[in-house]
Amino acid sequence: MNNTRAFDSVDTLSVSTIRMLAADMVEKANSGHPGLPLGAAPMAYVLWRYALRHSPSAPLWFDRDRFVLSAGHGSALLYSLLHLSGYNLPLEELKRFRQWQSKTPGHPEFGHTAGVETTTGPLGQGLANAAGMALAEKLLAQKYNKSGHEIINHRTFVIAGDGDMMEGIAQEAVSLAGHLKLNKLIILYDDNSITIEGKTELAFSEDIPARLRACGWNALAVSDGNSLPEIHAALSRAVGEREKPTIICVKTCIGCGSPKQDSEKAHGEPLGAQALKATREFYKWPDETFYIPPQAAQRLGELAASGEAARKDWENRLAAYAREYPAESAELASRIKGEMPADLAKALPDFSAAPAMATREASGKAINALAEALPGFYGGSADLAPSNKTAFLKYPERTLHFGIREHGMAAAVNGMALHGGFIPFGATFLVFADYMRPSLRLAALMKCHSIFVFTHDSIGVGEDGPTHQPVEQLSSLRVVPGLTVLRPADARETAAAWEAAVVRKGPVCLALTRQKLPPLDTAADIRSGVLKGAYVVADCAGLPEIIILASGSEVRLAVAAAKELNMRGKKTRAVSMPSMEIFAEQPREYRDSVLPPAVTKRLAVEAASPMSWHKWTGSGGGTLCIETFGASAPAETVFEKYGFTAENAVKKALEL
Amino acid sequence: MNNTRAFDSVDTLSVSTIRMLAADMVEKANSGHPGLPLGAAPMAYVLWRYALRHSPSAPLWFDRDRFVLSAGHGSALLYSLLHLSGYNLPLEELKRFRQWQSKTPGHPEFGHTAGVETTTGPLGQGLANAAGMALAEKLLAQKYNKSGHEIINHRTFVIAGDGDMMEGIAQEAVSLAGHLKLNKLIILYDDNSITIEGKTELAFSEDIPARLRACGWNALAVSDGNSLPEIHAALSRAVGEREKPTIICVKTCIGCGSPKQDSEKAHGEPLGAQALKATREFYKWPDETFYIPPQAAQRLGELAASGEAARKDWENRLAAYAREYPAESAELASRIKGEMPADLAKALPDFSAAPAMATREASGKAINALAEALPGFYGGSADLAPSNKTAFLKYPERTLHFGIREHGMAAAVNGMALHGGFIPFGATFLVFADYMRPSLRLAALMKCHSIFVFTHDSIGVGEDGPTHQPVEQLSSLRVVPGLTVLRPADARETAAAWEAAVVRKGPVCLALTRQKLPPLDTAADIRSGVLKGAYVVADCAGLPEIIILASGSEVRLAVAAAKELNMRGKKTRAVSMPSMEIFAEQPREYRDSVLPPAVTKRLAVEAASPMSWHKWTGSGGGTLCIETFGASAPAETVFEKYGFTAENAVKKALEL
Repeated sequence: MNNTRAFDSVDTLSVSTIRMLAADMVEKANSGHPGLPLGAAPMAYVLWRYALRHSPSAPLWFDRDRFVLSAGHGSALLYSLLHLSGYNLPLEELKRFRQWQSKTPGHPEFGHTAGVETTTGPLGQGLANAAGMALAEKLLAQKYNKSGHEIINHRTFVIAGDGDMMEGIAQEAVSLAGHLKLNKLIILYDDNSITIEGKTELAFSEDIPARLRACGWNALAVSDGNSLPEIHAALSRAVGEREKPTIICVKTCIGCGSPKQDSEKAHGEPLGAQALKATREFYKWPDETFYIPPQAAQRLGELAASGEAARKDWENRLAAYAREYPAESAELASRIKGEMPADLAKALPDFSAAPAMATREASGKAINALAEALPGFYGGSADLAPSNKTAFLKYPERTLHFGIREHGMAAAVNGMALHGGFIPFGATFLVFADYMRPSLRLAALMKCHSIFVFTHDSIGVGEDGPTHQPVEQLSSLRVVPGLTVLRPADARETAAAWEAAVVRKGPVCLALTRQKLPPLDTAADIRSGVLKGAYVVADCAGLPEIIILASGSEVRLAVAAAKELNMRGKKTRAVSMPSMEIFAEQPREYRDSVLPPAVTKRLAVEAASPMSWHKWTGSGGGTLCIETFGASAPAETVFEKYGFTAENAVKKALEL
Repeated sequence: MNNTRAFDSVDTLSVSTIRMLAADMVEKANSGHPGLPLGAAPMAYVLWRYALRHSPSAPLWFDRDRFVLSAGHGSALLYSLLHLSGYNLPLEELKRFRQWQSKTPGHPEFGHTAGVETTTGPLGQGLANAAGMALAEKLLAQKYNKSGHEIINHRTFVIAGDGDMMEGIAQEAVSLAGHLKLNKLIILYDDNSITIEGKTELAFSEDIPARLRACGWNALAVSDGNSLPEIHAALSRAVGEREKPTIICVKTCIGCGSPKQDSEKAHGEPLGAQALKATREFYKWPDETFYIPPQAAQRLGELAASGEAARKDWENRLAAYAREYPAESAELASRIKGEMPADLAKALPDFSAAPAMATREASGKAINALAEALPGFYGGSADLAPSNKTAFLKYPERTLHFGIREHGMAAAVNGMALHGGFIPFGATFLVFADYMRPSLRLAALMKCHSIFVFTHDSIGVGEDGPTHQPVEQLSSLRVVPGLTVLRPADARETAAAWEAAVVRKGPVCLALTRQKLPPLDTAADIRSGVLKGAYVVADCAGLPEIIILASGSEVRLAVAAAKELNMRGKKTRAVSMPSMEIFAEQPREYRDSVLPPAVTKRLAVEAASPMSWHKWTGSGGGTLCIETFGASAPAETVFEKYGFTAENAVKKALEL
């Protein structure tokens, strides 16, 4: 970017077009947020027209700059930009804003609308996704760029609002980005001094530039959010920054140009016919809905050609790179495509003769084995790597140190997954999945391939006590639509669980033990069973009278109890169910073969809340689970006191 | 406090005693965290002995200073202090550190050990609780103190570690405390430069004092965490601060004096016999476990008398206040005791003739009505008051503006509840309960009476789309042990739900609609039904063949479907179940009268995940629920597309 640029009347007209389109969308939908688009249109325009390197005809071009509207309620702004810039978003869709199955839902949805890089709305998330995207770019550039071959070189731009800046997750992301010196991350902060309850000063009196500088950021200011040259100059400086991420604090007025300007009334409801009319008059706009002046259409439409040229140039440079660095180029191409080796199972450790070990330990070995087969496999922990067993030993550069920032980690992992080129994971204790929950939900909603490694998955945590012992977490993860939870029962199940996690399309959570588990005493094909979600791990002859279902560390109790019950003449089957979600996807025939509908005496054994098990046990069944919090004591003591013994499982089964 | 104090050898000996007791506890338990106690003992000692106003013999003295060990893994430090200061924590309990049913669990647990003000361990929570405590103190002081009568005047001190400072929730709390000018909140930051993965510089490079100053804090530094005079001088300055909260950054060394000093190895495991021996030698300590030198016992034991004197002085001052301001004094006493008016139901609005209204609207009226009866009833929203309907109209000073900081809000609400004198609530959209989850869990674990108002409780959110439409939230709240969820079905149920929420002992979540709901068409005693968790809202003659269970906005569908089914000759009952938790507590007789065990055809209707319903519907039952995410469109459209119509409920019931 040049530091200075002269703006003409067509630029101003284009900004007005964005504003009025957004206001019209909200008005027609009779729902939405006109305030942000009216205030932030100038910065968004300068960014999209003169700073963002993107190609509307190829929205997935890998080396494009990423744009994240973290203040997702301003979706009308983004849809206006997408339409005017030539993305595949017809004006008809703008007119169907917030309607059933339109391409213009209330908040931007990744995977639903071309050009939307991430799903936003829950505040702070987009900003933290952006940190992950910028990290992805940096890691790829470090690995693949060669002297004279800058094939990975793009920026991540964010428009964030007051809400984003107030959320804790944003501070985690800011702190991490500053620490990692993600200089290609640039935030435009829409500083409009208004939130829903009124002036921000009701609840917010930070010196934002000072706070971000304290976190290693470069902070710039734009005193007039309507000044295109001032915005342009700040963006130029930010783009030239080589050391630090940059925040540009842009002083704007919410609902700019409308009678509701500078009031919370402009935020989250249509302007109304009268105020809309006044706004049109303010911008000297014809009294016509969805009006797009031809000059504005042309000015923003130019992006299609310039973007296409930039992309072609990159492809030529990539071809030159491929000639000089064929191996690196092939690897990068494979990562971008998300290719998997055909023999993933072979890449995983063979635990068939392994001794007793914690599943976190087996997971650590699996991670290091997968690293050989998957060059895009990166990850790290929220400062628990030695406990989570997540360090890459041979490839230390792939170990990410997220700090004690679980929420920011999860959102950054999502950002890496969305960016492409990575199979990323984040790790912490299972109980702290709670800290990451909004990002886990968004991963599920976006169907992005983020993996979360949760160790210390039960009261088996022991002495650390109830604050660190998950109880309700397994059920509360299983209830998230589209999130896959895998809780393996021994080292072999863990290897298969990692295989399932890597080949799965959406987000996956692995729940792993702190404590050692002996190998399952079974002749079953464990890998095949895990890949089907559940399988018979111990059986009787003929149709069982009783089925004991379990996951993870409790499977061996189920096996021992089944053995005892069979000895006593009660025909009993034990089922290992590492993943309810995967099992539920299997053909009915398989499901019925594992859990014959005729067998209603079903006991679920899991050192966790029973809620997710009732579906499987039914009214004839029972649960040996936990309905209170845990307790601080050595793990064996806690398990025993909470009734997790084979004897008690036998007793409970007989009570059915 | 005096600005300077001379420390003698007994002070040093006392610090060593704290250190060695903590190291012995961890060693004996063969589990725990010696690093923090060894490093932070000097600041903790100076604070407890010379700054903290507390009375070990009366740990609940209302005007005591609060102490929060936000870095809860350092629990051995706190237990040592409690024992040495004369709290009811015998040495035997220190020897049973982290053992089954000891008073010294792995992390400090409120309600379990006298002198523990809040449960900590999940990082950042304690600090944010402390902000709530300091806010509680400030609000009480503003309301009750009179010239010459400073009857409320105490501080909240926190020891926080690196993990606390990195967590997003801490930034939310810091920002809120700075904004609210909570000058009696003082953090001692144990800045030891080490986290679990190694040096903090692996992931953390903030200028903490600058960040906190940017948030309106006073920041002081102690360059040598072993210097008692330096710590004392900083604490004196902090205590004298009249404008801002203060952070004192104390440079410490983790595991100080042990061979593992300044290493992550000192953090989370016993020193081991050899290193413990070396540590004893360093501190010139006899080779004896749990050794307490008599002079140290005496120095810290003096607190009992001085604390008792301070408390008695306060009681005298309170008596003088009572003479001069009898009404205020009586009200304050009542708030401290947590008294409820006998006729709470009468204080609530009578909605018996009310028109259709959203339950959030009814809740807003209930909140304002309760304000008259409950002087300690305060609350606010995370910047959604106009949507959550949580503003106090007649008592605007009771409306809290938490800003867009859901997590910090929840922890601050917990802090206010723990402090006493308040029935506090926090509000946001139900979907954002996810942001607050770690604090909700701690509220349940502590059984503290925090109330959370969650509006926009289903796909009825409409156009804002899936990011804002809760689906899995109801089940994932119901699964938290000890958390009560109430989802009322009309205005009358809402009033009764508020009654239940106020009289309940533990934390309560209210789930309320955005959309209008007509009054239930029922002759049932709604109040009594809600207070029992579930009740028959529409019935047939004799034993029903089918029971339709529902909550909230779906109850009217259940009623309409039951009516239709009864007309068709299918004997059907409709049950409104606003609270599964309260219903589960009722005597079996009542439960069986509402849900006769013989009736196995049970359909649950709720615009949310079915997970929590399977327990009630059993294998003979079915659900009309949502197993995917929602969608952006007008609410009526979304309800219809997702099958929430009386016709569909009839169809599903007939399929059973």
